[in-house]
Amino acid sequence: MRFEMKKLFLSGCFFLLAASLYSQSPDVLQIRKYHTSHQREIMNEFVSFLSIPNIASDTSNIGRNAGFIMEMMRKREIKQVQLLSPVTTGAPPVVYGEVIVNNAFPTLIFYAHYDGQPVNPAQWAPGLEPFVPRMATGLIAEDGHLFLFQATESSYNSEWRIYARGVSDDKAGVVAILNAYDAIVKSGLKPSYNIKFFFEGEEEAGSPHLNEILEKYSSLLQSDLWIICDGPVHQSGRKQVVFGVRGDAHLDLTVYASKRPLHSGHYGNWAPSPAMMLVKLLSSMKDERGKVMVKGFYDDVVPLAAAEKKALKEMPQVDEQMKKELGIRWNEMPGKTLGESINLPSLNINGMQSGNVGKMASNQIPSTATAVLDLRLVPGNDWQKQQQKVIDHIRRQGYYVTDHEPTDEERSRYNKIIKVIAGTDGYNAQRTSMDLALAKTVIKAVKNTTTDQVVLMPTMGGSLPLFLIEKYLKAKTITVPIANHDNNQHAENENLRLLNLWNGIETMAALMLMER
Amino acid sequence: MRFEMKKLFLSGCFFLLAASLYSQSPDVLQIRKYHTSHQREIMNEFVSFLSIPNIASDTSNIGRNAGFIMEMMRKREIKQVQLLSPVTTGAPPVVYGEVIVNNAFPTLIFYAHYDGQPVNPAQWAPGLEPFVPRMATGLIAEDGHLFLFQATESSYNSEWRIYARGVSDDKAGVVAILNAYDAIVKSGLKPSYNIKFFFEGEEEAGSPHLNEILEKYSSLLQSDLWIICDGPVHQSGRKQVVFGVRGDAHLDLTVYASKRPLHSGHYGNWAPSPAMMLVKLLSSMKDERGKVMVKGFYDDVVPLAAAEKKALKEMPQVDEQMKKELGIRWNEMPGKTLGESINLPSLNINGMQSGNVGKMASNQIPSTATAVLDLRLVPGNDWQKQQQKVIDHIRRQGYYVTDHEPTDEERSRYNKIIKVIAGTDGYNAQRTSMDLALAKTVIKAVKNTTTDQVVLMPTMGGSLPLFLIEKYLKAKTITVPIANHDNNQHAENENLRLLNLWNGIETMAALMLMER
Repeated sequence: MRFEMKKLFLSGCFFLLAASLYSQSPDVLQIRKYHTSHQREIMNEFVSFLSIPNIASDTSNIGRNAGFIMEMMRKREIKQVQLLSPVTTGAPPVVYGEVIVNNAFPTLIFYAHYDGQPVNPAQWAPGLEPFVPRMATGLIAEDGHLFLFQATESSYNSEWRIYARGVSDDKAGVVAILNAYDAIVKSGLKPSYNIKFFFEGEEEAGSPHLNEILEKYSSLLQSDLWIICDGPVHQSGRKQVVFGVRGDAHLDLTVYASKRPLHSGHYGNWAPSPAMMLVKLLSSMKDERGKVMVKGFYDDVVPLAAAEKKALKEMPQVDEQMKKELGIRWNEMPGKTLGESINLPSLNINGMQSGNVGKMASNQIPSTATAVLDLRLVPGNDWQKQQQKVIDHIRRQGYYVTDHEPTDEERSRYNKIIKVIAGTDGYNAQRTSMDLALAKTVIKAVKNTTTDQVVLMPTMGGSLPLFLIEKYLKAKTITVPIANHDNNQHAENENLRLLNLWNGIETMAALMLMER
Repeated sequence: MRFEMKKLFLSGCFFLLAASLYSQSPDVLQIRKYHTSHQREIMNEFVSFLSIPNIASDTSNIGRNAGFIMEMMRKREIKQVQLLSPVTTGAPPVVYGEVIVNNAFPTLIFYAHYDGQPVNPAQWAPGLEPFVPRMATGLIAEDGHLFLFQATESSYNSEWRIYARGVSDDKAGVVAILNAYDAIVKSGLKPSYNIKFFFEGEEEAGSPHLNEILEKYSSLLQSDLWIICDGPVHQSGRKQVVFGVRGDAHLDLTVYASKRPLHSGHYGNWAPSPAMMLVKLLSSMKDERGKVMVKGFYDDVVPLAAAEKKALKEMPQVDEQMKKELGIRWNEMPGKTLGESINLPSLNINGMQSGNVGKMASNQIPSTATAVLDLRLVPGNDWQKQQQKVIDHIRRQGYYVTDHEPTDEERSRYNKIIKVIAGTDGYNAQRTSMDLALAKTVIKAVKNTTTDQVVLMPTMGGSLPLFLIEKYLKAKTITVPIANHDNNQHAENENLRLLNLWNGIETMAALMLMER
């Protein structure tokens, strides 16, 4: 007990010492001075950028986004500005640029992506359109109210938010990185590393051409470390440094019953219901406590290292705060914290549909029922093997599994028929060791920008195809996210809190200026 | 054994005798001659009628439909043409007309409805729009191909189909009834009953004002029998006379989890999934064989009378034919025929949705999951009691049931929260005795129009608020449907086979001409 007290006292002293050493360094204060006095131009440029729709499949607008970023780079006198295109034509290009300070210096690559998640405008709140950026005085789900962006404002309240698709995921990353570099140069400072900029255009589509691009441009992309600027900061509001990402894989399921929708009066009680078949199937995949019941689902997981376990333990426990904020009273896998849960593979229903609900509902027995599952992976999982485990589970529930709409012959042979499309865009998890020298420098630099604790996270919840960087470039990656955690990323009403943008610029600048 | 043989022989003789007595009566042949030589004008009028959108909530177009029907009646010199409106303003009116042949004669009321089911145009086949009628050479799901309607055609192939919302359910009823009367008059015949026409405009919305209208106009609506022209003929293609309908009630369920959609990477494995909660709940409602597991669900059912059991037994067994046609290999409640299943209450998922599927799918944990259930009822069931049984079942699964979006306070108190909206548009089943004198006359008249067996059905699968007619007018009802069974009623690609229209005109005329 006494020993524990002493340890607590010592770590308290260490914390005070660390805070005084690292926080509010002169460089960071210079960067802050710069962005504070240039809010108008930063915001105007950002809002123009957000007005360009950025769904990866929308080739024409993706081209406009890429052009906009090239122009942003040229204005900042970044060199070698160019598009990196895969061998496959038509795919969204990477926008590349570089600043070689000194050939003897090590090189950092700053990554963000400019494409956004697919969007259903009808689901956005009244007054919001995904590609017409709007300001709000706060989170509109709480007491924030919307108002029009004023291009002539010279200063914006830090608690205000911008609402638009891609604002936080991940155009904020592009904007923070480029303005961080701008701030350094305009403040008369100099990056202490060579810097390469790498802005991807189809991350939300699963980065299907990233491998081609990394392979094709492998000599251009030589570096010592990639800094990935994507995702939200910690739910406590603190900055975080993330050393790994979950992998991801998808399955699209369609259960087939009658060839045509049937009148539920004439056939209800007799015709098989694809909706009822699907709910029984999905229901079999998890128990009441959220544990995945698919055989072998938790096998293959690589245990956490000592430093990683320690980091997990030191993370602020946000579970209760998050539950309150989200209006929920329980969590799946009771007994495990959010941080622990993220270090296990998961199975999630992204969406499901059969027939219609609401005003379009009609008295029918639908002919099909569909669900989209995503499987999140941790180090040790192979994404295709994980998909296969679920497919095997479906077969064990008595289903005939096809990859096409069933033929009459198949319909005549099997009671339970399902089409399973195993997404080909999956990828494995990745994790960089926290014991790496450059990892320690990054941690120090981020701590340098804040008086708060910096959260160190072995694996973040989000997925990025970082294993490709390891595979094609033999380079390590560390993720330094900047968005607010309540940004509605991947859903309707996506938003960015302005303070997170300003803090993000400071963090990115600190990394460009960190000690060698 | 010998006795059985003799019975079979006698009933065979009776059948031959009956066929020669009843089929192809001179009157029916005259009606046939009339509609065969007037196909062009009948079809042109029908297509114009179908071009007017007819969703009950679309007040302006409902008004246009009612006006169109009034004009159809006036052209046929039907008297007392008027709109019967409920006390509540704005609700779709009934279009009424009458032909009093002789005050001493009994009176028949012919019922059909001119409104159609809500429609999602995106779900219709390429080339089809719900309110732009198209012709096809057959069922397009098989080998039928679409072509444009030719207004100048003087004769149409009887196997052709018209595709449009409401074409079979139930504008065909309006058109068959009014052209049957037209054919009688133009053929120099005279109805043997007084006739009243009653065309409802919000049947698909659950007839919420029918009670008001029946009460308000009860003296105008005095009659000896209602003939309900709605629904499809027997799946064997044979004509049928139906003595009862299932009742119907709805429940709208919405399961709530996190207040906002969450990134499935950052929260998957931890945040409760409303989709998974909903599938577990729905899954608990039926067993693998389609039996409803809700406590007491099959209680209260009034057993069938002897004549009804006999009719059920004599019905052509279409189960295997239907399975082949629908591309299914099994049915719910194995061991029971379709006819038997319809005489039991049912629980069906009309639709369910959570998040998005297909191109709009995104890596999220949705915040809600919704399902629409319909409960079909048989004599003995009380619709509100049946709803309550399901609500009680939901509570037994550990849910807190509300009728509103949960408040923060409710969210803080309950793990499992569901909003249940018990539809207020439900109604009970109804059944008219087959032993009634007028029932026997109707059976004879319909048999008179065909050389085929006429199917007698104690209860049809569809639901109509016929109990209201019993309640407010003390009148009996018999349903004589005319649409093809594969009409996609209540779903996309609704269609009518032309032969069913021609046969329907003959059937309706035969009823107007039947013996007193």
